[in-house]
Amino acid sequence: MSTVTCHISMSLDGYVAGPEQSLHDPLGKGGMRLHDWAFPADGERSEVDARVLDEVTRDVGAYVMGRRMFGGGDGPWDESWRGWWGEDPPFHTPVFVLTHHPRDPLPMAGGTEFRFVTDGVHSALAQARAAAGDREVAIAGGASTVRQYLAAGLLDSLHLHIVPIVLGAGERIFDGVGDPRLEQVAVVAGPTVTHVRYRVLR
Amino acid sequence: MSTVTCHISMSLDGYVAGPEQSLHDPLGKGGMRLHDWAFPADGERSEVDARVLDEVTRDVGAYVMGRRMFGGGDGPWDESWRGWWGEDPPFHTPVFVLTHHPRDPLPMAGGTEFRFVTDGVHSALAQARAAAGDREVAIAGGASTVRQYLAAGLLDSLHLHIVPIVLGAGERIFDGVGDPRLEQVAVVAGPTVTHVRYRVLR
Repeated sequence: MSTVTCHISMSLDGYVAGPEQSLHDPLGKGGMRLHDWAFPADGERSEVDARVLDEVTRDVGAYVMGRRMFGGGDGPWDESWRGWWGEDPPFHTPVFVLTHHPRDPLPMAGGTEFRFVTDGVHSALAQARAAAGDREVAIAGGASTVRQYLAAGLLDSLHLHIVPIVLGAGERIFDGVGDPRLEQVAVVAGPTVTHVRYRVLR
Repeated sequence: MSTVTCHISMSLDGYVAGPEQSLHDPLGKGGMRLHDWAFPADGERSEVDARVLDEVTRDVGAYVMGRRMFGGGDGPWDESWRGWWGEDPPFHTPVFVLTHHPRDPLPMAGGTEFRFVTDGVHSALAQARAAAGDREVAIAGGASTVRQYLAAGLLDSLHLHIVPIVLGAGERIFDGVGDPRLEQVAVVAGPTVTHVRYRVLR
């Protein structure tokens, strides 16, 4: 059965998004700084960071994400809205979007297809596993989606990119997840970020 | 002038002590787990962790700590009380204790002398610098003391020992410290902990 992974960038104070998140600013105030290592302003990703990014994405056969990460609000869908990610999203696999509002699948260029799941995190994971086959299922985010999978004991592996910034407010991934047992399995230093992979023990 | 450093063990959710701290349980519920890497139950500290611990302590000429870390409460001192640390505390230098209540210096075995400072963090640091000479001043803790020095821009270097546990509650070091500019300068992987040193930029 496919491994369930999550890789996510976190500030030193535990935030994966800044405060004042909105549909127009999904990462919140300062939240983009979490991703500078992966998407540097000068376009020159370091060799180490490029390798880590390749490692955490190359074996993914399906993603699961929250509706806000896709680009959805609380209400029913405006079906003309095709999400944040442009016409050729960077996933290249099925992406299962957790939502309360049904919607037909949305095929995009490059192999990404958004599929909307209204019956919860277990169902989304089962569908993602079926789509991924032997490849990994990655929980893409945001914070609330990661928390739900972590709290439910459904993650096998958590890969944190620890960024030396202090956001002060926003969304944390470990709030309310209980006391998961994590085993440190790999540490890689990028120039401006520390990549740490943990196994989630059962 | 001496460098001002701090090295501290932190959970993945940003806590340096667990909840329900008291005079009888200064690290709070679960807080001892933060220090397993440095003080393992079997006494067998790993070579890497031993080296890191040596690096962060060998050049220290004076420490600053909060009254609770010394072992003090809110009231005046009971002068028969000689702190948590036993008769030969592991500091071997002057230790400046922040308190609202004056007390005579308390010399201990092995070169440690607790000196009580009632006029605030700047004064404690000035006294510690004078005592340390060319060696480092280390802010020993607890959380509130570290926060005060970080918020005041008085730290030069912060060395985090990032421990893969989730405490869920307790004392955080980055709450209310503003937006310090930190530069990652060294990453070392212990078997069960990630040691990361940051320079605090001015």
